[in-house]
Amino acid sequence: MQIRVYYEDTDTSGFVYHSNYLKFCERARSELFFQKGLSPINGDSHFVVKKIEAEFIKSAKLSDILIVKTLVSEIRGASLKLIQNIYRNNELIFEAKILLAHLKGEKVSKITHETLEFFTNFKNR
Amino acid sequence: MQIRVYYEDTDTSGFVYHSNYLKFCERARSELFFQKGLSPINGDSHFVVKKIEAEFIKSAKLSDILIVKTLVSEIRGASLKLIQNIYRNNELIFEAKILLAHLKGEKVSKITHETLEFFTNFKNR
Amino acid sequence: MQIRVYYEDTDTSGFVYHSNYLKFCERARSELFFQKGLSPINGDSHFVVKKIEAEFIKSAKLSDILIVKTLVSEIRGASLKLIQNIYRNNELIFEAKILLAHLKGEKVSKITHETLEFFTNFKNR
Amino acid sequence: MQIRVYYEDTDTSGFVYHSNYLKFCERARSELFFQKGLSPINGDSHFVVKKIEAEFIKSAKLSDILIVKTLVSEIRGASLKLIQNIYRNNELIFEAKILLAHLKGEKVSKITHETLEFFTNFKNR
Repeated sequence: MQIRVYYEDTDTSGFVYHSNYLKFCERARSELFFQKGLSPINGDSHFVVKKIEAEFIKSAKLSDILIVKTLVSEIRGASLKLIQNIYRNNELIFEAKILLAHLKGEKVSKITHETLEFFTNFKNR
Repeated sequence: MQIRVYYEDTDTSGFVYHSNYLKFCERARSELFFQKGLSPINGDSHFVVKKIEAEFIKSAKLSDILIVKTLVSEIRGASLKLIQNIYRNNELIFEAKILLAHLKGEKVSKITHETLEFFTNFKNR
Repeated sequence: MQIRVYYEDTDTSGFVYHSNYLKFCERARSELFFQKGLSPINGDSHFVVKKIEAEFIKSAKLSDILIVKTLVSEIRGASLKLIQNIYRNNELIFEAKILLAHLKGEKVSKITHETLEFFTNFKNR
Repeated sequence: MQIRVYYEDTDTSGFVYHSNYLKFCERARSELFFQKGLSPINGDSHFVVKKIEAEFIKSAKLSDILIVKTLVSEIRGASLKLIQNIYRNNELIFEAKILLAHLKGEKVSKITHETLEFFTNFKNR
């Protein structure tokens, strides 16, 4: 997924505000669903971020075009581990390991069979 | 209401990103409710912004302390007009006229008597 | 310019947070430059938003695809007036009149001949 | 440092958008400086986030009042490790370990003596 850096993404340092890389990752996760005509919210079921380990390698700036690559590294009954890397011109500038939990209402709940299959597609990209 | 400018509010120009002044105004509107132990959302009733006329007079930057002043200029059955001005050290840097509509669900609906009284308090501040 | 609505753009009402429509407009303005290999920042010259008149007609929600159309309505020596409309499925949901001032450093300054020509392209789209 | 949750901080799930907890942490870091009449930017020296490990324990929602506590866990020549926890009514809802690097221009550089002393104050809070 390709993302352009706009004014709103930058801060007074001249570079992208650090937490916005996590927004870019979330856009890429949602876009996986949208591209298949699905939504990350399915009735009262959805995913929430439980843990993030992120490394900020290089800084992006206004007008940069970034690529977010999403890989599912582990699928469990009620959670997923993702690796999301952000590249600029094939150079890795940000990497994150993200643990998502699946909720139904406000309770952790098993990921449905269809959603599991959906994510299996992203295991070896 | 007093607001500090943080990194997140600025952009690569070194100043506050323009639409963030509108966020500051919204914080001030919500804080009117919170200060009285109320919420801007009352069951399925809430206000939405319908129109904005804003003038950007001076730019704020990291660490500035801004004051948002809110005045109710007109109260109708299902809408309110507000004037929200932002000051830095008594200097006016932003002014907005904001028309809010009152919704119940997704339909325009009469503002309740209690809410009308609540806003009347802000008519001559 | 096409924009997808992500989680970050929405708020607890279930719809897009009002000031984010102005972010979408800014993305479209910047993208005009980026598409030609230019930047909205040219040395120490850039544009700032001086006035906005915006009308919020319908609300957008997660996964919506919005189209921002930008028209230059007036070109003066040191300022521009734009009309920026946002559509969803050909339905107008937001419209704004935006006055931009051209700055060199922190002072208003004449728009260069090249930039004037650049914007003239968007006068009758 | 006390933070109120406003509309802008929430998303369509009804809770605070995940990366906004990192914004709250950044506000608290900057506020450490502002409270002493200092700035996190000192000439061309400033800190950047290099690594984050964050755990999202509970979700905050509109009108919640959150407390961010910042503890310096390790001080090195050109970097700092912080622990930043967010509480709501004394309940821990978010915790993060954050590695900051000190830059002069775009290069890693030794933290000045004064800044080291400044951070030493926050080692045992």
